[in-house]
Amino acid sequence: MDTALTPPIITLLTDFGTADHYVGAMKGVLLGFCPGAQLVDISHDVAPYAVTEGAFTLSQAWRCFPAGTVHMVVVDPGVGSARRPIAVEAAGHRFVAPDNGVLTMLYDAVPAHEVREITAFRLFRQPVSRTFHGRDVFSPVAAHLAGGTAFAEVGGTITDYVRLGFAKPARIGDKTWSGTILKVDRFGNLVTNLASASWQHLNEQKFELRIGWHVVTRAAQTYAEMRAGELFVIAGSSGLLEISANQASAAQLIESRAGDAIELHLA
Amino acid sequence: MDTALTPPIITLLTDFGTADHYVGAMKGVLLGFCPGAQLVDISHDVAPYAVTEGAFTLSQAWRCFPAGTVHMVVVDPGVGSARRPIAVEAAGHRFVAPDNGVLTMLYDAVPAHEVREITAFRLFRQPVSRTFHGRDVFSPVAAHLAGGTAFAEVGGTITDYVRLGFAKPARIGDKTWSGTILKVDRFGNLVTNLASASWQHLNEQKFELRIGWHVVTRAAQTYAEMRAGELFVIAGSSGLLEISANQASAAQLIESRAGDAIELHLA
Amino acid sequence: MDTALTPPIITLLTDFGTADHYVGAMKGVLLGFCPGAQLVDISHDVAPYAVTEGAFTLSQAWRCFPAGTVHMVVVDPGVGSARRPIAVEAAGHRFVAPDNGVLTMLYDAVPAHEVREITAFRLFRQPVSRTFHGRDVFSPVAAHLAGGTAFAEVGGTITDYVRLGFAKPARIGDKTWSGTILKVDRFGNLVTNLASASWQHLNEQKFELRIGWHVVTRAAQTYAEMRAGELFVIAGSSGLLEISANQASAAQLIESRAGDAIELHLA
Repeated sequence: MDTALTPPIITLLTDFGTADHYVGAMKGVLLGFCPGAQLVDISHDVAPYAVTEGAFTLSQAWRCFPAGTVHMVVVDPGVGSARRPIAVEAAGHRFVAPDNGVLTMLYDAVPAHEVREITAFRLFRQPVSRTFHGRDVFSPVAAHLAGGTAFAEVGGTITDYVRLGFAKPARIGDKTWSGTILKVDRFGNLVTNLASASWQHLNEQKFELRIGWHVVTRAAQTYAEMRAGELFVIAGSSGLLEISANQASAAQLIESRAGDAIELHLA
Repeated sequence: MDTALTPPIITLLTDFGTADHYVGAMKGVLLGFCPGAQLVDISHDVAPYAVTEGAFTLSQAWRCFPAGTVHMVVVDPGVGSARRPIAVEAAGHRFVAPDNGVLTMLYDAVPAHEVREITAFRLFRQPVSRTFHGRDVFSPVAAHLAGGTAFAEVGGTITDYVRLGFAKPARIGDKTWSGTILKVDRFGNLVTNLASASWQHLNEQKFELRIGWHVVTRAAQTYAEMRAGELFVIAGSSGLLEISANQASAAQLIESRAGDAIELHLA
Repeated sequence: MDTALTPPIITLLTDFGTADHYVGAMKGVLLGFCPGAQLVDISHDVAPYAVTEGAFTLSQAWRCFPAGTVHMVVVDPGVGSARRPIAVEAAGHRFVAPDNGVLTMLYDAVPAHEVREITAFRLFRQPVSRTFHGRDVFSPVAAHLAGGTAFAEVGGTITDYVRLGFAKPARIGDKTWSGTILKVDRFGNLVTNLASASWQHLNEQKFELRIGWHVVTRAAQTYAEMRAGELFVIAGSSGLLEISANQASAAQLIESRAGDAIELHLA
């Protein structure tokens, strides 16, 4: 399954921000080890150390790329500790990341994945610093994989990799589920962990979606059909229900953020 | 006029920000539909839903690219509504955007433009979501155009496309004009809608430029000739007069922002 | 030493931000003058006019790229004044920048560098604006160099280029040094100007590092070995000592920023 892309594509997803030299340094290493690779930023603005947010962002982006792409994910609060660097192959894509659960949603989405611990020191940039594995470990390994190094060369397979206990909606009554806000996006949309496929006809029935002191009772097919500023539920482009407000920030109206609890009652 | 670039160039201009997965998802689609394309970000930090600001930013950037470039503009408050997706050919460049006026300054700058409604569903990414046409409609169409699909294949020509009523300076007295601030840039420069070519010798005559409670009476050729913190008018790199302050933010000194009214009096 | 890269690589480091059209315009010019060049952003979020911060960021990134790379640095408070545009060759890399000291750390790191004043108007984009040399001077010259124009063609060598008086640590007592904070990064780490190679065994001895009212007395090998929120000194990936806090912002805990004085006492 070592699909070769011409030119190779390497994506970057980090919590490094773009004001420092970190991303530039990594890209230099990537191009040094894999000349001509096409580098694509998913985002560098994951909140610092926010492994769950990184997992969500990756889950929404990686499938849009062609098979053969190598995805480098560096949200790594444990850099320098005993946490392992890992490489994963799934659906023809390759991933390099710290083993801290940031790939959990990938494991869920592609059950037939293979995980290897990265132990091939010979692939690293020397000397390896204690605090910047994005530059010294993940970039050179990602570049080697993109350039044609066989997946098995990074190290042996493991099965005890970290999976995060992401909150899934729980049925807590006959017609009641409790869930969580996974992410607040730039437009203030609140992405829930309720799969829109499971509640496809919400706009045809009576329901209450409670979040904090607020109760949302309307579902929309498009933003445009609602009045400006009105709260509603909509099937988001992520395949999850979102709480939104047309041309306004639902997150501001509700004063909500990632991690907040929600409760859905059907009438 | 189907100029072919090797590699093809596709630019992106959106109000999506860079903290979410949206831009990464679009780039994955672009590279899937047009392998090897060179992707260039104009900006993703247009203020949310700010069609006029997007129009100004595009107008300043697109001409710097070589003919044959495809520009994708997704500032799209009406996504999912009846607003049409359009493609435009002008001066050898191609543009895809929602038909909401975000291309108005392009229409003004290149009178010999051709506008088509995008109706070729077969070019889209399936399934088409209701809320993320940047990924499902505009990206695949931009990629097809960059990859060689003939312009006429996107759909039929239209003439009733949206042009915004951008404020142009109005002559309101013998030697008096009223105008508008179009944009505040990172350095706090206030870009007006007064063409600098129309007032080339402002530094050789007496004038008053009024904005709020402030009156600017000096014109400069370069930032460096002014004292730090002093307000002045200068011919900006955009071909428009700007209100600036050397090594300070004119926008902060004046407490001004896009949309504010200005008035120019010559002595 | 005119190493040719295929494709050519051009990096960009500016204080332009990413909300305006400036970066997009420069990239259009770069691709027009050097088709197929690979453009890599180091950062556009250097604080406005912060020449020292730009110098530090460049120093950490450029060496990660392969020889032959052209680096464009536009942190240019003096644009339009008499400050000269320069081009530098060092260690097989080329640099274009204003002559305001932003390359000082490069001069220190590579004593065998060559500096030329850019005077070859024929290489510029016409007409040359007074306020946007990033687009009209630096981009076309960088593109020409990346595309194979000989280094000597940009203009004659000079030796009186600007070097900034960066604070180096000063020995102010038998076992006491005074220094400076060079940079605060996204994670709130305070990068000092104390080379970690000069104090390699700090974790094995007693010391006091004073900054404002705070005294740091612990040194760590990795972030993970410290308790969350605890202040410590660590050898950063930049080769300099940093003041850090595990999973917290040292800059917030100390209320410190670039330019602050520090004092190191060994027991």
